[in-house]
Amino acid sequence: MQTTLQNEPFKLDIRVYYEDTDTGGVVYYANYLKFFERARTEFLRSLGMNQQELADSQKIMFVVKQANIVYSQAARLDDLIEILTIVTEMRASSIYFEQQALRNNELLAKASVQICTVHATRFKPVRIPLTTRQLIQKAIN
Amino acid sequence: MQTTLQNEPFKLDIRVYYEDTDTGGVVYYANYLKFFERARTEFLRSLGMNQQELADSQKIMFVVKQANIVYSQAARLDDLIEILTIVTEMRASSIYFEQQALRNNELLAKASVQICTVHATRFKPVRIPLTTRQLIQKAIN
Amino acid sequence: MQTTLQNEPFKLDIRVYYEDTDTGGVVYYANYLKFFERARTEFLRSLGMNQQELADSQKIMFVVKQANIVYSQAARLDDLIEILTIVTEMRASSIYFEQQALRNNELLAKASVQICTVHATRFKPVRIPLTTRQLIQKAIN
Amino acid sequence: MQTTLQNEPFKLDIRVYYEDTDTGGVVYYANYLKFFERARTEFLRSLGMNQQELADSQKIMFVVKQANIVYSQAARLDDLIEILTIVTEMRASSIYFEQQALRNNELLAKASVQICTVHATRFKPVRIPLTTRQLIQKAIN
Repeated sequence: MQTTLQNEPFKLDIRVYYEDTDTGGVVYYANYLKFFERARTEFLRSLGMNQQELADSQKIMFVVKQANIVYSQAARLDDLIEILTIVTEMRASSIYFEQQALRNNELLAKASVQICTVHATRFKPVRIPLTTRQLIQKAIN
Repeated sequence: MQTTLQNEPFKLDIRVYYEDTDTGGVVYYANYLKFFERARTEFLRSLGMNQQELADSQKIMFVVKQANIVYSQAARLDDLIEILTIVTEMRASSIYFEQQALRNNELLAKASVQICTVHATRFKPVRIPLTTRQLIQKAIN
Repeated sequence: MQTTLQNEPFKLDIRVYYEDTDTGGVVYYANYLKFFERARTEFLRSLGMNQQELADSQKIMFVVKQANIVYSQAARLDDLIEILTIVTEMRASSIYFEQQALRNNELLAKASVQICTVHATRFKPVRIPLTTRQLIQKAIN
Repeated sequence: MQTTLQNEPFKLDIRVYYEDTDTGGVVYYANYLKFFERARTEFLRSLGMNQQELADSQKIMFVVKQANIVYSQAARLDDLIEILTIVTEMRASSIYFEQQALRNNELLAKASVQICTVHATRFKPVRIPLTTRQLIQKAIN
């Protein structure tokens, strides 16, 4: 993982179920994006943020603007995957994440993900709310 | 399929992709519910109904109240599945469907599905709008 | 839940993520089948069974034969759902489950699910292996 | 789309169903990877290739090695999306695709995807079989 001000990556364990696999006998490639999003969501929740509340009360939603994924090893049914998540940068309306999926410390896949804050119904970019910004800033310092 | 006033079942072809399969080498069981819903949606579309418009303009949404599925044969990657859909009954706020998934006329799965019309945000049952009712009534006679 | 010899239902907590929801603002109906399967899998794992190993070593797989679901209340993003799972019956090659999805003890959906043991590649029914049978028998007594 | 020897991109129409959307009211970001894969699969099928047969007879499978996606506009329920697919490069065991998702010629998302040919059970890279190579070569010239 690239250098970051964040001391410790946020960790989330994910179990591989039938729904995650495909006929190749491995986790379907698109499903890593689900795993990575669960981890970002739990990272935000660990800071005290609830996305449903943010949408309801402040009309703000996080959307993915860009995702780059590299697949290294395949995961199988019943595997226990650890997702590591760090914030590497924060701008006016963007947050940049580096994420890794590991199985027993072996890299399965890694992703660079840019998310943006948008208005929940108009979908136009809006600035990250100050409280959200402060919560994330505190986490990455 | 049980006797119905509807002369001809509505037919939709669906191709099995990687995303639909699991590590057992077959279509994952929950995904038949996706296939059956695509068929109900296309049946409604064939009658001139668009669910997004119905939600936007009339605040009405279809939700599934009950689904009973029996699995007979497994489908595999690249299979072409035909979904047959008929309406068997319509009540004040419920529509009852019988659906089958076939591959070369061999039964893969069948489902009885009850859907209800609800208010799009309050999720309370509402009567099926008259135009919707008439469109469906015409189809099943 | 219907009367059963099993003293205590098996419990699994599931968090609702974006991937689970649909544009109706609620959990997509087919995804409850995913939740129910995760719970059956964890129930089996809690008894010491690993399905990937069972497929690899004994060429035995569990497949769903029938599923009846009734939907009562909608779940939303960020909800914490509790899945209750009990075995109600076991036959030569079938296991019958009753499952419930609850949010703060409020029923969201319930399902009756019949699974069968089949040969992992030929997909023909096979008897439940004795060790598997004994592990489940012990759990439900 | 970048310059390519392929005269015409391969086109596939995809309808957005409930299963594709999330509570944000738009297509869930990971599902574009499903759409892009359906398009690659249909492109290969249009050349006469069937991936299930390739796995069964030659023990060869396509896996995604890398995917870079940029999201521009959101798609909604009932939208009709057109996927454009071109091959930009072919190496010993890799094929490079550029893909776009459009709605009425408006760009929704685009992806660069590298797929590799691997042994279907050992998952080690293998050379693209000659017939496969020739079929693709013919398509891109």
